[in-house]
Amino acid sequence: MVLPGEKSNGKIYIGVVGVGGVGTHFLSQLSTLLPTQPRLRIALITSSTKAIYSTSTSPSTISLDNWRHDLSTSNSTYLYPHLIPHWLANCPGHAVLVDNTSSPKLVEETYTQCLKNGISIVTPNKVAFSASQQEWDDLQASSYPRNPDGGFLYHEATVGAGLPILSTIKDLLDTGDKVPSYPSTFPPHKPPEIVIINSITPNQITHISGVFSGTMSYLFNTFSPTSPFPQPQPWSTIVRQARSLGYTEPDPRDDLNGKDVARKLVILARLIGLSVASTDAFPVQSLIPAALEKQGGSADEFLNKLENYDGEMATLRHAAESEGKVLRFVGSIDVATQNVKVGVEKVGKGEPVAGLRGSDNLVAIRTERYKESPLVVQGAGAGGAVTAMGVLADLLRVVRQVPS
Amino acid sequence: MVLPGEKSNGKIYIGVVGVGGVGTHFLSQLSTLLPTQPRLRIALITSSTKAIYSTSTSPSTISLDNWRHDLSTSNSTYLYPHLIPHWLANCPGHAVLVDNTSSPKLVEETYTQCLKNGISIVTPNKVAFSASQQEWDDLQASSYPRNPDGGFLYHEATVGAGLPILSTIKDLLDTGDKVPSYPSTFPPHKPPEIVIINSITPNQITHISGVFSGTMSYLFNTFSPTSPFPQPQPWSTIVRQARSLGYTEPDPRDDLNGKDVARKLVILARLIGLSVASTDAFPVQSLIPAALEKQGGSADEFLNKLENYDGEMATLRHAAESEGKVLRFVGSIDVATQNVKVGVEKVGKGEPVAGLRGSDNLVAIRTERYKESPLVVQGAGAGGAVTAMGVLADLLRVVRQVPS
Repeated sequence: MVLPGEKSNGKIYIGVVGVGGVGTHFLSQLSTLLPTQPRLRIALITSSTKAIYSTSTSPSTISLDNWRHDLSTSNSTYLYPHLIPHWLANCPGHAVLVDNTSSPKLVEETYTQCLKNGISIVTPNKVAFSASQQEWDDLQASSYPRNPDGGFLYHEATVGAGLPILSTIKDLLDTGDKVPSYPSTFPPHKPPEIVIINSITPNQITHISGVFSGTMSYLFNTFSPTSPFPQPQPWSTIVRQARSLGYTEPDPRDDLNGKDVARKLVILARLIGLSVASTDAFPVQSLIPAALEKQGGSADEFLNKLENYDGEMATLRHAAESEGKVLRFVGSIDVATQNVKVGVEKVGKGEPVAGLRGSDNLVAIRTERYKESPLVVQGAGAGGAVTAMGVLADLLRVVRQVPS
Repeated sequence: MVLPGEKSNGKIYIGVVGVGGVGTHFLSQLSTLLPTQPRLRIALITSSTKAIYSTSTSPSTISLDNWRHDLSTSNSTYLYPHLIPHWLANCPGHAVLVDNTSSPKLVEETYTQCLKNGISIVTPNKVAFSASQQEWDDLQASSYPRNPDGGFLYHEATVGAGLPILSTIKDLLDTGDKVPSYPSTFPPHKPPEIVIINSITPNQITHISGVFSGTMSYLFNTFSPTSPFPQPQPWSTIVRQARSLGYTEPDPRDDLNGKDVARKLVILARLIGLSVASTDAFPVQSLIPAALEKQGGSADEFLNKLENYDGEMATLRHAAESEGKVLRFVGSIDVATQNVKVGVEKVGKGEPVAGLRGSDNLVAIRTERYKESPLVVQGAGAGGAVTAMGVLADLLRVVRQVPS
């Protein structure tokens, strides 16, 4: 933090927390970038066990050439989360927390404190943005521009990894020429948990839909292809294959429960001006059969039992095929009706999501201006390299806005 | 311009040139935005006949409430282009030239002068960026960041109107982790007009392709749909329809010659690090039959004669259909082979461009990271409202980077 009366040295100090899949890619990409970004300094790298950081306020001496070795041989244990804002506040220039974890504790103990102290945050961590609406509101109120002295807060990679989804939506909102007028009373059938906030910036987005999970994309593109020859494998076989290819979490139930997609929908809905109490505020279809949900057990036990439900999934697919459609796991937000939902849908073969391949994500955004056909962004939406790229692009967004 | 020793007042002064289709939408969108952007001031609005501007350096008194009336009743003739940089330089804060024209004269007499004086430019005008490579290089050298004191230069709307194409490519380039290594000598069959510049920032883009013209998109989506029932109308009938719907220029030959797409390809190629001498440096297929090209004549005469070539176009479509493909007017850039081309291609029905509807644009970007399937951006790529939105988003990019 640059104290009143002190002058920032114009440098930008980066504190990197988490060196897993995303963190490792991030540091690798950052090291290639450093020669062209003379303002950047590495102030801190911390894992869950070790840390390296410079103990003076002079320009950091942390090099990325050998960071993995330096970290593993460091004498310093990891930096306690609650100390991170203080550490970064001591940097003699603008500081940025790069949270490459999925830790709720880190969010709780650092985010608001950092932002209020003018420290920026860039992160792919969905935790802070998909929890309570209150937490979202607090973060917005703590960060720039709502708080003129606050740090910047960017989280592009929380939805679609490196795909330009949130930044595109923000551009649409910022350049919106229509403030939608909705009934101030809610239709009786709507849950009160989803509310339109009328006080946000003019916004013209009317509908967002798409496939927001690389895992679900792969599963359904394979199980329900647009061309039904050769006959696809049974559902449980495809889930097994996806797991062995690394396309699912170690326990596929963590994907099949739909929670990951629900979290992304919460983030998108709030971004476009809906107040959403939580991921429980709207219908989320789980692909874990109710009976198996109760039984618990290991991932392998689950997969063995899932075979018993292959017939149900095949019936669902045949129903779609008989209408000339395919199955996709779709998330959608309709602003006018405040309707948010996540689940399996029958989709016409001409729809953009029907043509998805591999594990691609796709988001279709309808606005006043993109009314007849939506603005579509499509591509790989998961994986360490593209996620890290989204984080790095956010970091560069901060750099561009910090005066030198 | 803020002179040495003077302090900027933190405001941002906007000079708007051109009040045609894009300019009118731009001013309308800007006026809705002003209440949330207290730093913005309108310093100048000029058409090709009239102008309104404030004659003092105090905050402008130009209001957008009634600009069309104010302009038409103004006693001031239009501001000569060569005077614009001087006028904007007198503003007591950061100045931005918004060029909503397609005028080469304006480019020639204002762009470099503005940029060198720290005045930013945002524009949908392709002229400056698709002319000679030397002009492109001069603009880059005059603007920020190559010139640390230069103005910002953004032209998102030169390709795909409001679609986030150039900004996405810039993010990919900025966060590139691979500097491609290409042979320093060129294959003998390549024209020397296209050259890879090795000194640009690390870049990882390997291939760009897509449909870059709303007109061409509409013509081929209608003439060669993925589902061939009912039988499409003859080619010349569809061109006539497109013209009457306003989807073509008043003279459809200005679309059919492929030049508009060629200009966009030049811009994209240069952005990703190729040096391209001009739009003549690569093959561009014209859909004006050679015999008709020579004859000249009015647009109506041309359309009457175009009927004689309906058979040729139908033959082309049948050839595609016999391979299970459709026809699309595609532009593509292959970085490794320095291959740039524009023309009609037979496209598999599973390809993203085959599924295009209406007059949508689509760009597919392949990179080291988006290798297996490309990053795709798709949507309306022409029209006053979405073009103006692209210009306005660029203006907000400037605002975010100018210290207050």
